[in-house]
Amino acid sequence: MSSDILRFLDSSNIDGFLFVGDSISNSDMYYLSHFLAGDRFAILFQEKTSILVSSMEKSRAKKESCADEVLSTRDYHIMEKLKSCGKPELAYIEALKDFLRDHDVLRLGVAYSFPIGIFQPLSRHFDIQILESPARRARSKKSPQEIDCITTAQRACERAMQRAVELIACSEPRGDTLYLQGQPLTAEQIRSAIDISLLQDGCEAADTIVAGGTQAAEPHARGTGPLPANSPIVIDIYPRSKTHRYYADMTRTVLRGEAPGEVKELYHAVLAAQEAGIGAIRSGISGEEVHAAVSAVFQEMGYSERDGCGFTHSTGHGVGLDVHELPSLSEGGEILKSSQVVTVEPGLYYPDIGGVRLEDLLVVRDKGCENLTRCRKDLVL
Amino acid sequence: MSSDILRFLDSSNIDGFLFVGDSISNSDMYYLSHFLAGDRFAILFQEKTSILVSSMEKSRAKKESCADEVLSTRDYHIMEKLKSCGKPELAYIEALKDFLRDHDVLRLGVAYSFPIGIFQPLSRHFDIQILESPARRARSKKSPQEIDCITTAQRACERAMQRAVELIACSEPRGDTLYLQGQPLTAEQIRSAIDISLLQDGCEAADTIVAGGTQAAEPHARGTGPLPANSPIVIDIYPRSKTHRYYADMTRTVLRGEAPGEVKELYHAVLAAQEAGIGAIRSGISGEEVHAAVSAVFQEMGYSERDGCGFTHSTGHGVGLDVHELPSLSEGGEILKSSQVVTVEPGLYYPDIGGVRLEDLLVVRDKGCENLTRCRKDLVL
Repeated sequence: MSSDILRFLDSSNIDGFLFVGDSISNSDMYYLSHFLAGDRFAILFQEKTSILVSSMEKSRAKKESCADEVLSTRDYHIMEKLKSCGKPELAYIEALKDFLRDHDVLRLGVAYSFPIGIFQPLSRHFDIQILESPARRARSKKSPQEIDCITTAQRACERAMQRAVELIACSEPRGDTLYLQGQPLTAEQIRSAIDISLLQDGCEAADTIVAGGTQAAEPHARGTGPLPANSPIVIDIYPRSKTHRYYADMTRTVLRGEAPGEVKELYHAVLAAQEAGIGAIRSGISGEEVHAAVSAVFQEMGYSERDGCGFTHSTGHGVGLDVHELPSLSEGGEILKSSQVVTVEPGLYYPDIGGVRLEDLLVVRDKGCENLTRCRKDLVL
Repeated sequence: MSSDILRFLDSSNIDGFLFVGDSISNSDMYYLSHFLAGDRFAILFQEKTSILVSSMEKSRAKKESCADEVLSTRDYHIMEKLKSCGKPELAYIEALKDFLRDHDVLRLGVAYSFPIGIFQPLSRHFDIQILESPARRARSKKSPQEIDCITTAQRACERAMQRAVELIACSEPRGDTLYLQGQPLTAEQIRSAIDISLLQDGCEAADTIVAGGTQAAEPHARGTGPLPANSPIVIDIYPRSKTHRYYADMTRTVLRGEAPGEVKELYHAVLAAQEAGIGAIRSGISGEEVHAAVSAVFQEMGYSERDGCGFTHSTGHGVGLDVHELPSLSEGGEILKSSQVVTVEPGLYYPDIGGVRLEDLLVVRDKGCENLTRCRKDLVL
């Protein structure tokens, strides 16, 4: 990585690149420091990587982070600064300025997401360029170790899906509703079974979609209450490993009872569109072209997008330390590169029928792609 | 809330306040919109609240958000803009500008955390002030409903703590290590028991500290491997409800085996410091004064902070939609107000002894505080 960084600093004409934030919500910061912290800290990216943490975190950061140097705000006399200015935020900015000067920074780079409240006071003292984060693009190409991490999370995802599908398969359709052991089977029960299975595999899911009937017509509705019989149920699981923090992502659509003809046709179209998308993926093709290949299948089969119905979202996205990251398989999507990990997840949504979505996770390769997903696709259980 | 907002807009001399981000990492956005989305959207805060989402999210946002108006980037012709400029980010900025103009915005407010990459292009067309988020301070005072939410999460936290303490109490000290059913009892086992208990109560914990021995001397080290006998084990649980997204926070320190005299003394000092902190809390006192009361007890008892050892962190923090939010009980901490929810969590840390921390969750009231925590404090199990 180090030579890439030097080249980046050189070509951008800056002395260092600065991140300020927490590494739970800013995955670039976790990627660059391997230091997981819910409280704000700073990373200065130069020939060497230096991080600035609170004094309480200094010794942990020395042990856990991969930074070459760990400094604390106390090393820059933050308590004395606080006493003289009275405002914690001003004292922090002063410490940050000292930290930058101490590292001979005059020309600084920051990412698009950098907070304006810190940018503004720094911009009076440093020449700052707003650039794409050097981590953003680097993160999209995965190392073999990262692909192993994602694959482990994907296996956990599949075991959780299996558990969900088994529960639905055991349920009994009565009228419009599914019953299990005499009670309506709910989205909450399925979600809970998924959560427990994920936890047993060391993963967590902030949210999981289990949506049937008209709920499934909203791609991101999480779903609540009794699950419908004879109607498609969308199950979208995107767990993160609690150990290495990499995500997986998978969606299946299942139905218990009698499948109406129009639902079978939707499922058939989504499957064909997904196969076209997966078939199109290889390094050198653009995300836009893959999306166009998927959209073309829907067009041909008579499922044009109209009035917010049909295929209303993009074809897919990169998956890694964030569940949505580069590259994007959508209009405007860039050229795909080998070792990127992406989803292909076409779906069709109609308020009067419901929704169908199928999502696999794939590694882009030179001559195609490798499907990380080992989970059956059966509509009717 | 609406009259507060109008007053805020008026006094700041702006036509609207803009947020752009996702409401998973930006709790202000969730607080203001009640719309939970992992993908970026915008909230414009005027006499009415308007949100701008992708077309895929429009119908869900209409159902789930509390915004007065939901618009989509498609309503501002984002696909046509993308076709003409070729860059998704530029097309988004153009749609955002149209959205602002459409709402008669000339003078705009944004928060300190607003991303510079969006601030900069907007600043060429709007007169932008960087202000404290109107939600930040509003969030620190909790409504009775919010206190109910936090209390529910706290009860889940206590049941999980109970489970952890029971497991340690059942273990057998052999040499320097605790054993359960013939095997060393590990931090991972305890964390897993905590996670399962939390999940049964509809909560999740991104991380939980179970750290014994020298590991416990780092306040934020999560802890790994076999747990020590005759040595304090710090258990810090900060779960979030998956339903309403409010946090709770609690720490206990326990020891199985024989407690060395110096550990008993540490525990006694931390307990006394915590009692002094809790005793000091009432509306009108500053967070700085509460912290000083806690520090004074440690000073008196001979535990001054030195060389990064001793009481190395602040006394506490607000808890709500974020686990760390206003107010701060630390140097520079502001005046406390009735209905704020705060932790009081003094601790002492020495590499050669380990760590001891005790944390309760309290509601600030006019004449003192209400302790939301119902969990025993026993060092030796």
